[in-house]
Amino acid sequence: MSNTFLIFEQRTKENLRALLTKCKQNQCNFRPHFKTHQNPVVSQWFMQEGVKSITVSSLDMAYQFAQEGWEDIFIAFPLDINEVEELEKLASMINLRILITHSSQIQALENLNVALEFMIEVDVGYHRSGIPFQSYQQVLSLIEESHNNKNLIFSGLMAHFGNTYQARSQQQIKGIAEKSMNRLVDLGTRIERERGEFVYLSIGDTPSASILNDFVGIHELRPGNFIFYDQMQLQIGSCDLQRIAAVMECSVVDKYEDRLIIHGGAVHFSKEISDYQNVRNYGFLVDTSGAEWKLHKSYLSSLSQEHGTVFLAEEERTLFEHGSQVHILPVHSCLTANLMKNNFTIIG
Amino acid sequence: MSNTFLIFEQRTKENLRALLTKCKQNQCNFRPHFKTHQNPVVSQWFMQEGVKSITVSSLDMAYQFAQEGWEDIFIAFPLDINEVEELEKLASMINLRILITHSSQIQALENLNVALEFMIEVDVGYHRSGIPFQSYQQVLSLIEESHNNKNLIFSGLMAHFGNTYQARSQQQIKGIAEKSMNRLVDLGTRIERERGEFVYLSIGDTPSASILNDFVGIHELRPGNFIFYDQMQLQIGSCDLQRIAAVMECSVVDKYEDRLIIHGGAVHFSKEISDYQNVRNYGFLVDTSGAEWKLHKSYLSSLSQEHGTVFLAEEERTLFEHGSQVHILPVHSCLTANLMKNNFTIIG
Repeated sequence: MSNTFLIFEQRTKENLRALLTKCKQNQCNFRPHFKTHQNPVVSQWFMQEGVKSITVSSLDMAYQFAQEGWEDIFIAFPLDINEVEELEKLASMINLRILITHSSQIQALENLNVALEFMIEVDVGYHRSGIPFQSYQQVLSLIEESHNNKNLIFSGLMAHFGNTYQARSQQQIKGIAEKSMNRLVDLGTRIERERGEFVYLSIGDTPSASILNDFVGIHELRPGNFIFYDQMQLQIGSCDLQRIAAVMECSVVDKYEDRLIIHGGAVHFSKEISDYQNVRNYGFLVDTSGAEWKLHKSYLSSLSQEHGTVFLAEEERTLFEHGSQVHILPVHSCLTANLMKNNFTIIG
Repeated sequence: MSNTFLIFEQRTKENLRALLTKCKQNQCNFRPHFKTHQNPVVSQWFMQEGVKSITVSSLDMAYQFAQEGWEDIFIAFPLDINEVEELEKLASMINLRILITHSSQIQALENLNVALEFMIEVDVGYHRSGIPFQSYQQVLSLIEESHNNKNLIFSGLMAHFGNTYQARSQQQIKGIAEKSMNRLVDLGTRIERERGEFVYLSIGDTPSASILNDFVGIHELRPGNFIFYDQMQLQIGSCDLQRIAAVMECSVVDKYEDRLIIHGGAVHFSKEISDYQNVRNYGFLVDTSGAEWKLHKSYLSSLSQEHGTVFLAEEERTLFEHGSQVHILPVHSCLTANLMKNNFTIIG
């Protein structure tokens, strides 16, 4: 095998337990996002720690994890109205929660024959999907509209603070996360007052979940990337190198004075680029041989479909030979893990 | 199904026949690169046209196509010396050709028990892998070294003109391709003179294969991307819009005044970015409803793992609704096709 995705069991479990503890301290439900690992072994580690509810980002992924025994799944992706039939089938098998952002989705569910929970997505500053947090009336009328359908159960508001990925320090993460959280809590409180009913609030992004300690007013956390972290999280300030739990291992297939060619390209890493440490790179080489990992100065400078070109720092030119295995910190572990779903190795 | 990779059969077959004709006119062997489509249906279309030999970029892919009935496969990727055992197994089943760039690879094959062809890669200007074209002596000593192993059969020189991807006009493609080709032919001729033996020369990149008409001195063409083309090839000048043969079809799951959210993210498109028409984009929307395709002005402006955000041009804001299917021209069809291997639709 000329490459594999290495998952370090101890570090992965430590990351898992750290978030579990934080959720317990905050009396939050933990509903980890499984899009990061999509892995049956890692999935079992969550079960062993008593996790019961998970998040996924597609109906396909929901089916996959339902087959692996998960019975409480949230598809945190706006409902595709073309998929109602397959959705209904799954909802008859497990406790399924979906995501609504628009009235057309409620209309598409009018003939629903099975109970289905839904959340409304609120845009608290990221500006991807969701009803803007200022549009109180719009959120309220979606809830009202859903009451025409006895099978559709409103289960709260959710937000994704994707803009924390623009932070470059823990202070910045904290600033964005607290502002976003306040917007969601304020909206939830207002709706509670109006309707006289408790409103459940769910948030989820790794930077916030890693850096904040207090989640007052929030009932559920859905981070995903925290399980492995990656170079992007290191750059943002969500983690340090010793919490990263997965790397790519690739064979050196060719060597020149200033570069290596490895069997690891865009079909393995995906093509996420970074400017970590002011170096335009697709991943830094890392020494994982000791308990403390060490970053090398050499890095992946370009990716073809299967070839990766490693720029060799001058002082590291004798470290690697034809046939050596190099370890590389992916820029975005979710995308790498997705590509390496069928080719991973657990380091126990 | 909320997204699929649409393969347009007629256009694909026209692309295939155009290259076949060009190879026949030049008396070149056609050894198409299958890394682009990796598709069992498209693979059959090649067989139906009489193609017998193919190129792949990994041992895994070689196994896949051997299982589909291909008996003459070139792995155009520098040999990983860790994979000799699996390689030998495959070489005992089909006519396998591998790629050598360094003496360590010949040493790793010293106990080879089965006949195996190899090519030497020459770097004619791309500077990824291969022996620099000026290093005549180095190429020659690799050939000599291989003679110590009776099972190792030197079958010629190969080059990949990957630098044609930096071109932005047909004139520039022509310039790079002709310079590269001359370097390879000169080296081949010099070795023929020295050794008194014919030297087979193989080249392969879609821009050169699409734009050049004469391949004097070249014996084999290995393009891959030409089968579908994509936005990158359009930008380079290798093709026009009417030769592009594959797009992504994605559901609109959400709509705002200035943008759509589609179910198509980095796990579907990969994360190749382009500045085609001076617009930083991950793919332009395209109208494929008529015989002549038309590019929209709207484009994929950002990609998360599963979400794609489409920037909506002002005049196109009423074209798409919740649940609509949009068609998107991928920046790099090879990477998209790889991700969509198990989710494609043939448009007959």
